[in-house]
Amino acid sequence: MRYELYYWPSIQGRGEYVRLALEEAGSPYLDVARERGTSSMMRMMEEGATPPFAPPFLKAGKLLIGQTANILFYLGARHGLAPKTEAGRLWLHQLQLTVTDFVLEVHDTHHPLGPSLYYKDQKPEAKKRTEDFWNERVPKYLGYFERLLEKSGGSFVTGRRLTYIDLSLFQLVEGLRYAFPKRMKAFESEIPELRELHDRIAARPKIAAYLSSERRIAFNEDGIFRHYRELDV
Amino acid sequence: MRYELYYWPSIQGRGEYVRLALEEAGSPYLDVARERGTSSMMRMMEEGATPPFAPPFLKAGKLLIGQTANILFYLGARHGLAPKTEAGRLWLHQLQLTVTDFVLEVHDTHHPLGPSLYYKDQKPEAKKRTEDFWNERVPKYLGYFERLLEKSGGSFVTGRRLTYIDLSLFQLVEGLRYAFPKRMKAFESEIPELRELHDRIAARPKIAAYLSSERRIAFNEDGIFRHYRELDV
Repeated sequence: MRYELYYWPSIQGRGEYVRLALEEAGSPYLDVARERGTSSMMRMMEEGATPPFAPPFLKAGKLLIGQTANILFYLGARHGLAPKTEAGRLWLHQLQLTVTDFVLEVHDTHHPLGPSLYYKDQKPEAKKRTEDFWNERVPKYLGYFERLLEKSGGSFVTGRRLTYIDLSLFQLVEGLRYAFPKRMKAFESEIPELRELHDRIAARPKIAAYLSSERRIAFNEDGIFRHYRELDV
Repeated sequence: MRYELYYWPSIQGRGEYVRLALEEAGSPYLDVARERGTSSMMRMMEEGATPPFAPPFLKAGKLLIGQTANILFYLGARHGLAPKTEAGRLWLHQLQLTVTDFVLEVHDTHHPLGPSLYYKDQKPEAKKRTEDFWNERVPKYLGYFERLLEKSGGSFVTGRRLTYIDLSLFQLVEGLRYAFPKRMKAFESEIPELRELHDRIAARPKIAAYLSSERRIAFNEDGIFRHYRELDV
């Protein structure tokens, strides 16, 4: 079965966590909106018995699954990217939902007054929010994952086997480096384990092949991680 | 087995979605921080193999489960508050994660510049964010759930059986009525199905008993839904 991934075609965004899992799993998928435009994606949010609220969503045979962490929960169990026990899967999902929260806070750095307004109309507020984000939130979230890695007893967050949370943390480090190169450079000495994890993921054959392919969309200022020089002081 | 719920003792907050599910299930639980203070809750976020990032979390025997939607996913399957099929459970969880997103946007109405600053230090920004919230986000989110109810073919979101999403939507309506009574009053004609669902939930014997008990904490200005007159115009 070939999966169908539905997500905005010009950004990494929330879809990227799903793409990374599919790529690492070596599972064939059609990135529908990139290949065929967004019209069927838009239609699926209007029609059917279980219309998703927003992309990304994944078509897996008859199943239509929305919400990034929910998709990963489903894929993880089927492709060896999650523990086998219920307790292990709930724990992993809990961590992914913590990533979800963090991603929304990343988005809020450039959209503190709301997702419907343009960045240019909320620049001073974005500056304040970004200040708080780096003073309080980044140390709290990344410090949490750093401590989990310290005591994991293996190379990955849950131990000796890679799971989808490791891929997501790779993406967070990549994204923060793109959006806030100066701030991130100053901060990275605080998170040696996360840096190593990042490098370990980047070196995995399937991920490395993906990252250098055209399937990997470049970071840009329509996505979640945006580079605005005035926010990176 | 008696569950142990860990959450801040003086607010409804995110813990309330879990409380409503436990109450409807008629499942005994200890609301730990309310009964015994927050020290053990704080300790559990530091220690152990699977420390939660933040409350709420639920101790279920040996399991420790964090993230509201994850807790509901677990409880739903065990207490008849979720469909029996995998497809049904993933769909329900997807909806709950959409509620999670909305709850974070509710919080952002009074904390647009970040969760670490006080409301009094971000009043003008809160006003702008609240404007966008009511113009764009409330119609989008509640309109989505309204349409699901319209075509559910039963009294509840997923059909003829109550699930935890119905309890969560009850809480959203309650919260919006508390925080924004004027705006919500003007808006409610748009969501007749949600209003009816709200009333149906409120009238359920176990929920009615809970709401009139001391276990239900009153809404207040430390929680997610806060009433600030200047934001309710």
